Amino acid sequence: MNQQLETEELMSVSRRDFFKKTATVSAAAASLLLPSAVLADDPAIMEEVKWGTTLGEEINVNPYGFPSKYEHNVVRRTSALMSSAGDMHAAISMTPLHEQKGIITPNGLHFTRTHNGVAHVDPNEWRLMIHGLVEKPIVLTLEQLKRYPSETQINFIECPSNGAAEWKGPQFNSVQFVRGMMSCSQWTGVRLKTILDDLGLKPEAKWMLAEGSDGSEMSRTLPVEKVLDDVMIAYGQNGEALRNEQGYPVRLLAPGWEANLSVKWLKRLEFGEKPWHAKEETSKYTALTASGKAIQHFYTLETNSIIISPSPENSWTDLKVGDLVEISGLAWSGYGTIQGVDLTFDGGKNWVEASLKGLVLPKAWTQFSYMHRYDGRPLLLASRSYDDSGDVQPTVNQEKKVVGVECVYHRNAIHTWAINAKGEVNNVQVRS
Amino acid sequence: MNQQLETEELMSVSRRDFFKKTATVSAAAASLLLPSAVLADDPAIMEEVKWGTTLGEEINVNPYGFPSKYEHNVVRRTSALMSSAGDMHAAISMTPLHEQKGIITPNGLHFTRTHNGVAHVDPNEWRLMIHGLVEKPIVLTLEQLKRYPSETQINFIECPSNGAAEWKGPQFNSVQFVRGMMSCSQWTGVRLKTILDDLGLKPEAKWMLAEGSDGSEMSRTLPVEKVLDDVMIAYGQNGEALRNEQGYPVRLLAPGWEANLSVKWLKRLEFGEKPWHAKEETSKYTALTASGKAIQHFYTLETNSIIISPSPENSWTDLKVGDLVEISGLAWSGYGTIQGVDLTFDGGKNWVEASLKGLVLPKAWTQFSYMHRYDGRPLLLASRSYDDSGDVQPTVNQEKKVVGVECVYHRNAIHTWAINAKGEVNNVQVRS
Repeated sequence: MNQQLETEELMSVSRRDFFKKTATVSAAAASLLLPSAVLADDPAIMEEVKWGTTLGEEINVNPYGFPSKYEHNVVRRTSALMSSAGDMHAAISMTPLHEQKGIITPNGLHFTRTHNGVAHVDPNEWRLMIHGLVEKPIVLTLEQLKRYPSETQINFIECPSNGAAEWKGPQFNSVQFVRGMMSCSQWTGVRLKTILDDLGLKPEAKWMLAEGSDGSEMSRTLPVEKVLDDVMIAYGQNGEALRNEQGYPVRLLAPGWEANLSVKWLKRLEFGEKPWHAKEETSKYTALTASGKAIQHFYTLETNSIIISPSPENSWTDLKVGDLVEISGLAWSGYGTIQGVDLTFDGGKNWVEASLKGLVLPKAWTQFSYMHRYDGRPLLLASRSYDDSGDVQPTVNQEKKVVGVECVYHRNAIHTWAINAKGEVNNVQVRS
Repeated sequence: MNQQLETEELMSVSRRDFFKKTATVSAAAASLLLPSAVLADDPAIMEEVKWGTTLGEEINVNPYGFPSKYEHNVVRRTSALMSSAGDMHAAISMTPLHEQKGIITPNGLHFTRTHNGVAHVDPNEWRLMIHGLVEKPIVLTLEQLKRYPSETQINFIECPSNGAAEWKGPQFNSVQFVRGMMSCSQWTGVRLKTILDDLGLKPEAKWMLAEGSDGSEMSRTLPVEKVLDDVMIAYGQNGEALRNEQGYPVRLLAPGWEANLSVKWLKRLEFGEKPWHAKEETSKYTALTASGKAIQHFYTLETNSIIISPSPENSWTDLKVGDLVEISGLAWSGYGTIQGVDLTFDGGKNWVEASLKGLVLPKAWTQFSYMHRYDGRPLLLASRSYDDSGDVQPTVNQEKKVVGVECVYHRNAIHTWAINAKGEVNNVQVRS
């Protein structure tokens, strides 16, 4: 069994198998899982460490707590390339995916996209108008909205431009910049269906306009089928109120669909017979195809995945040949639930199955994992996810055939990291 | 069907039923779910609101974000009663449960208990020694610990003193102070079993000592069965590193057991044949019984629940007779998974079944919900949870029979809120 573990270079090891095999290795006293760790033959080593033997901080110093000062590098990042001509009012800042643990993004690190800056809305003045083709148009205060029965669910939010730069080939040697326009949170709010059942939606209502109260009056149109299916008016994020950057006090949440449909700083919902063709669904958020026609209203974010460890920020430069190492990452799909993730070590010629770990929820980040015995050889490492709707992550060439040459949206092509003999990780493109 | 809804004062309404019935009410144009909401006959009302029509804040102002200034009251709170003679180094601060949304506590609001202040540990200097009855004693750096395959799971942490004051009868008119010594997070770390499989646990090892590096050198003993079952060495909390208050950079996590077994600022694990009888498991964290003998090592937190809305902080003073209102709260059990929650409106004479909503996970907060038609009559409102191990929340008198008169720990007796004719909510005790 040890020999099997040593030689199964490209074999799938399920987590259950891994633990069994690890136990076998250990019992046989063959080698440590971490051969580079210090053996504690001389416990005096602990005396060299300065422990917190002094009085700590009083408990009431931070009624609302912040990260340790040693975590100051774990922050959202942006660049001039991710703004409108360097204007940081119309820009994107990226979640530090390389430091992501599990499937919840801390609120302080949720990616942010604004079209006219982060609005600061007074919740006491906030109102939501719901009107148009409803029997009883209404204006709600925040207290009134919260009186409706609430729902809580975990969903990712992803900007349709996530990975946009990659359409032209590798631009950033960083998983934060390559895929950081997404985050995943536990959202709390009211299902729009609950309110519409109350107000009476007229049968001729087919579309809904959602309008934000920020300076850009961000507006998008959604079909009523989606609205009645799972759209939420959200006021809670990971246990507390939304943050300003996420639309405080209230945003729309359209699970699995382009993030800008989840309109922030929400102020108005109008129901009508036809789509509104708002600015952000004509001049932007459309995709030119090879035929010369543009795809409009392509809302759902396709199945996708990214390897986070290793990545340019999480290299293998300190590994030794023979070390066991976990390859891990995130998969997600706007169509439903991730069913599996495959890995390739040779740029797509051969594939093995990774394990899913932790919670596997619809329209939410899903963790995948694979235990790999490092042998020091260069790799072209990539992941490919598939979901319960039958959607499979395409290659770069396969995706280009569907959405044409000028597209910057819905990038879900398989993403490859090249690992060289030193264990360094670089962003490369494998097209086939 | 409308009439049924009007009259089923104490009947259980499942969420599915609720939505069906709401739809019926709406279609019949009988009444709004929110009769006090403003109808938008004149949309000009929206013009009175000052919307964010100005330029917002630049996106890179807060690389790590903070709550809106309007949320400044949503904070942890403490009192001299929750400290050692007013010393805020040995004290407890409470999570604002009345503002809790869903089952994840934001890291900034996680309850905090310290025995000698909040330690600030440099992660570069941090070491973990694992020694005693293992084949290969070891000293790990943080990097080495993180090289082991990680696990992520959602678990509550609760101080065994949660609700301690209630043993003497109602002390605080506040759900934050009555039950706020608990929080629930998504934890990421390494299963201790994974490391022990690697190091080789000797057969004679029956107990583990866990020691913290804070000024109090907080120490507790755990049986090896629990250690191998589900104990984790945690470095991640809700997607990011632990906070200082939660043991940065590394704490133990003993799911479902007394919080102080989840030793913070962890520095040492030692395996031995017998329990250590550390200070915090002899002078404290034991329970005197009526026989005069004390219960020691009673680790597991029993099934428990608390109604959060209504509560003293979330009153019904603005309700009108006939309004539908959601009764909601949290249930949890250290033994396993919540199976159900019952509600009483008359101090325990009659019970109805609430619905569980959202994720139902082992050793995690579970939300319960019940739609109630408010009729203005005074109520004695309480919840009673039960779990998949067969554990049922006891009455005050039932609990007192088991753990005697002097106990301050493991308070899980049914907790009652009295609601008066004005809709005000007060903390009371119903013993039977």
